[in-house]
Amino acid sequence: MQTQPQPEQLQQCIDFIKAIDALKEVQRKTYLLSESRFENSAEHSWAVATFALTLADYAKPGIEINRVIHMLLLHDIVEVDAGDALVYDDAARAEKAIKEVAAADRIFGLLPEIQSANFRAIWDEFAAEETPESQFAAALDRMIPLIHNLNTGGRAWQEHSVTYTQILTQNKKIERASPALWDYAHSRIQQALTDGWISE
Amino acid sequence: MQTQPQPEQLQQCIDFIKAIDALKEVQRKTYLLSESRFENSAEHSWAVATFALTLADYAKPGIEINRVIHMLLLHDIVEVDAGDALVYDDAARAEKAIKEVAAADRIFGLLPEIQSANFRAIWDEFAAEETPESQFAAALDRMIPLIHNLNTGGRAWQEHSVTYTQILTQNKKIERASPALWDYAHSRIQQALTDGWISE
Repeated sequence: MQTQPQPEQLQQCIDFIKAIDALKEVQRKTYLLSESRFENSAEHSWAVATFALTLADYAKPGIEINRVIHMLLLHDIVEVDAGDALVYDDAARAEKAIKEVAAADRIFGLLPEIQSANFRAIWDEFAAEETPESQFAAALDRMIPLIHNLNTGGRAWQEHSVTYTQILTQNKKIERASPALWDYAHSRIQQALTDGWISE
Repeated sequence: MQTQPQPEQLQQCIDFIKAIDALKEVQRKTYLLSESRFENSAEHSWAVATFALTLADYAKPGIEINRVIHMLLLHDIVEVDAGDALVYDDAARAEKAIKEVAAADRIFGLLPEIQSANFRAIWDEFAAEETPESQFAAALDRMIPLIHNLNTGGRAWQEHSVTYTQILTQNKKIERASPALWDYAHSRIQQALTDGWISE
């Protein structure tokens, strides 16, 4: 650690912060709980990082929760260039995945060399979903829209004609990171089916 | 750490996450860099926490940067009940400070006992601005609106008739946490005065 950044490095950090301001204008497919509008990817990133801090005591033993929080702060930044895609739309997600790599090159490349490499490593780890930290981050990233749908009568699911089978398939990975979270989500998805909010 | 939360604790954590969704609808006095609208307190919290991660290498030696990030994720949650106040409006800020304590009681009180006490301690530390971590968090929280004003022709400053003297007085505390950040900000505030964006 150094106490004083060089002016050029500081300017690069500020250029990065300026570039990612655009994430506040990337619209997701999830409604706010008030249903007044769709949420954006920046405020979503705050909510899911805060969720990680809230659930820190419930992560698997040995999980480095701060690494999870760092991933969740950075996970959607590539959407500044690549946009958001519905998690249930496989074609859109495949196309987005290609754009995201170019976006990571450009946006993390704005930073001084060391931070750039660090941030890229954090994002690559998140995207690969191979470590316990990235799997917990992915679980929380899936839980948040579930919570929103389950508390707005399944509104976004209905508008996108998402089925019960799709919801189970796309979200079951929550279980590998946290069986308790999946128990919670699964029982409520069942109830949504029973209540007629979603179709088989 | 336990691997499985009890259902009641998990429900309390989710109730907390649901309650703080309203922060996405608390409007700040700062414009997005695109100037398309004011930013909200949730997306601001994401930006400033990400700024802390970006500047981790430039904090004073010994600063626990993750504590700073936790503070910044939680620092504005009280605005769900207390709203936002212009940093240059002393009367509004004094009134808000009283509301914020009641808000902290209510909102952090939604959590299970241990998390509730943890989060309250983090927020109290931020509000007191006595530790190096809280002073660095406060500096970043001030830097973000400066960056936005300095990159939008001082628009929010002009709309609220904020003077050069007010800007210096309210933001000078950046210096105690990071002289380099203050050098950067100070020279640009001078330039804004020279350019006629703000008055003495």
